[in-house]
Amino acid sequence: MTIKVLGYAAQSAQAPLAPFHFERRAPRADDVVIEIQYCGVCHSDLHNARNDWGNSRYPMVPGHEIIGRVSRVGSAVTRFKPGDRVGVGCMVDSCQHCAPCEQGLEQFCEQFPTLTYNGLDRQDKSPTYGGYSEQIVTSDKFVLHIPDGLDLAGTAPLLCAGITTWSPLRHWQAGPGSKVAVVGLGGLGHMALKLASALGAEVTLFTRSPGKEQDAHRLGAHHVVISSQDAQMAAVKGKFDLIIDTVPYVHDLNPYLPTLAIDGTLVLVGYLGDLNPMLNTVPLIMGRKSVAGSLIGGIKETQEMLDFCGQHKITADVETLPIQEINEAYERMLKSDVKYRFVIDMASLKG
Amino acid sequence: MTIKVLGYAAQSAQAPLAPFHFERRAPRADDVVIEIQYCGVCHSDLHNARNDWGNSRYPMVPGHEIIGRVSRVGSAVTRFKPGDRVGVGCMVDSCQHCAPCEQGLEQFCEQFPTLTYNGLDRQDKSPTYGGYSEQIVTSDKFVLHIPDGLDLAGTAPLLCAGITTWSPLRHWQAGPGSKVAVVGLGGLGHMALKLASALGAEVTLFTRSPGKEQDAHRLGAHHVVISSQDAQMAAVKGKFDLIIDTVPYVHDLNPYLPTLAIDGTLVLVGYLGDLNPMLNTVPLIMGRKSVAGSLIGGIKETQEMLDFCGQHKITADVETLPIQEINEAYERMLKSDVKYRFVIDMASLKG
Repeated sequence: MTIKVLGYAAQSAQAPLAPFHFERRAPRADDVVIEIQYCGVCHSDLHNARNDWGNSRYPMVPGHEIIGRVSRVGSAVTRFKPGDRVGVGCMVDSCQHCAPCEQGLEQFCEQFPTLTYNGLDRQDKSPTYGGYSEQIVTSDKFVLHIPDGLDLAGTAPLLCAGITTWSPLRHWQAGPGSKVAVVGLGGLGHMALKLASALGAEVTLFTRSPGKEQDAHRLGAHHVVISSQDAQMAAVKGKFDLIIDTVPYVHDLNPYLPTLAIDGTLVLVGYLGDLNPMLNTVPLIMGRKSVAGSLIGGIKETQEMLDFCGQHKITADVETLPIQEINEAYERMLKSDVKYRFVIDMASLKG
Repeated sequence: MTIKVLGYAAQSAQAPLAPFHFERRAPRADDVVIEIQYCGVCHSDLHNARNDWGNSRYPMVPGHEIIGRVSRVGSAVTRFKPGDRVGVGCMVDSCQHCAPCEQGLEQFCEQFPTLTYNGLDRQDKSPTYGGYSEQIVTSDKFVLHIPDGLDLAGTAPLLCAGITTWSPLRHWQAGPGSKVAVVGLGGLGHMALKLASALGAEVTLFTRSPGKEQDAHRLGAHHVVISSQDAQMAAVKGKFDLIIDTVPYVHDLNPYLPTLAIDGTLVLVGYLGDLNPMLNTVPLIMGRKSVAGSLIGGIKETQEMLDFCGQHKITADVETLPIQEINEAYERMLKSDVKYRFVIDMASLKG
């Protein structure tokens, strides 16, 4: 039997989000039914709601930083039981048998993973609806355990902002003895600072303007470099093993490349598009440096990140809001007026 | 006592190369005096002779793919003796104590390595002159042993074209089970094919136009992909762990990125400049791919490459010429009219 759910949806690219009644599928044998308590607000929610990427389906219920409690499980589910605290991130399914899936890299599934919203279910081809809603019904394979003792609202952003920065930090082996820089201090950037410093790296924040030093240090940065100041940039020439670039809009990478150490890598996690101005290859060749990209992370890796955050008591810095304020939150997000992530308290849906 | 030497030099950016009498320094305790037998002709010789990079010093004696025989050694030299077959590549010195030098990455010396020509000696600040000459006097630390049994003319290009492709193949671990593609079939590209296939990788040549299949297969390629044919490019989507891009002029990297496997790397070894058209980040992010650069290789690694070539009987395909034809050779090189490297037979200097 399908489940009647209240959520917030955009009915078109121009419409503000508004209450929306819809049905979740009748749980399958491997499904977990989750009562949603918190849902983080990712920049991509806004892009998708407004069809900025041209592939939006309406009505659209955004949200892929989901924290909740299991209310029911299908007959084949063994890893979860009612009452468990769980999370759901950007993906709810994948083909499960291609090489990337078998390596735990479901985000790179050769048949493309099923996204938590704006996707199509692999079995019944029904649209997927995200976490701005009371409940979600989803395959147990993409459900994460949430460790005890973490603030639940602050945990929601770990499911996207957390894993997106954790995955490259781990892949490029940030840790004691390594020097990591983070470009941009937003939802992703502030998580990168927290995670990199908890991993034991020496952490630097690159920021364009002064005024963020205090926050940066509190979040885990050991140093702050004002990227608009040539002398400060020159002082970190050849320093960084890894730069996590979280900036989501077009920007010039060339000033950062000389700050990479030999064999260093600058990883883009936020910007999809052309590198404008053009990337100059000289610093790459004169130091065997790389420019790379990274996309969220796999499910196993997401669980590892959550467990690490449980051990280290790491959550995002969030501003919680009732769902009724989501449209204002989008406007504030466009002005970077949030420290550092909005999270919807889903109890407000019943209000 | 200084050594009087005949060579060929450019006296200005506009002048053709012509005979030039000059003096090599009196050998120091750690110096090796080498009677030059062959010198390869690298594209950069032409760029330097014509001041294409704006930093040329005249008179200029080009040449950094040097093969010869030791005629004399300084009192502190223990690794070489008169009669030894030796080589000299792109560098003749470095600071020897910075972190890159200590890691055997002299090409990335923090104080910049001393180039074999168009450089300045670190001790007496005299200009360095390259291999288009009878003899060279140089520190033993940058002299390489040449294994027995290799054709000497064909060995000369290993000192630049060989190590430039070997170093990224080794750094990114090309070998059995890995899939390597090579962009461009010139001096560097033909060495990349030979070395990658000898290392056990499955090797593909990307080329813009048909007609090179037979040569490519003879040189070690298992497959040839015509990069101007969309269907052929689509057929290798997601295939390559490593692409060695040897193209020395501006070109579009975007068509190659989708052919990288997850975690694959495209390494630029030939092009210094802006990536025009602009690099698009989507394929990087959707597969954790990298664009990197690599520059020649360190001295230890160069010796390893030479030893490997000795074991596998690998030399470059060369066209030998007398020094008197060097200016015509430059013109032919500009038209890619060489298979695959010119090498000067230095006996011609005496002719």
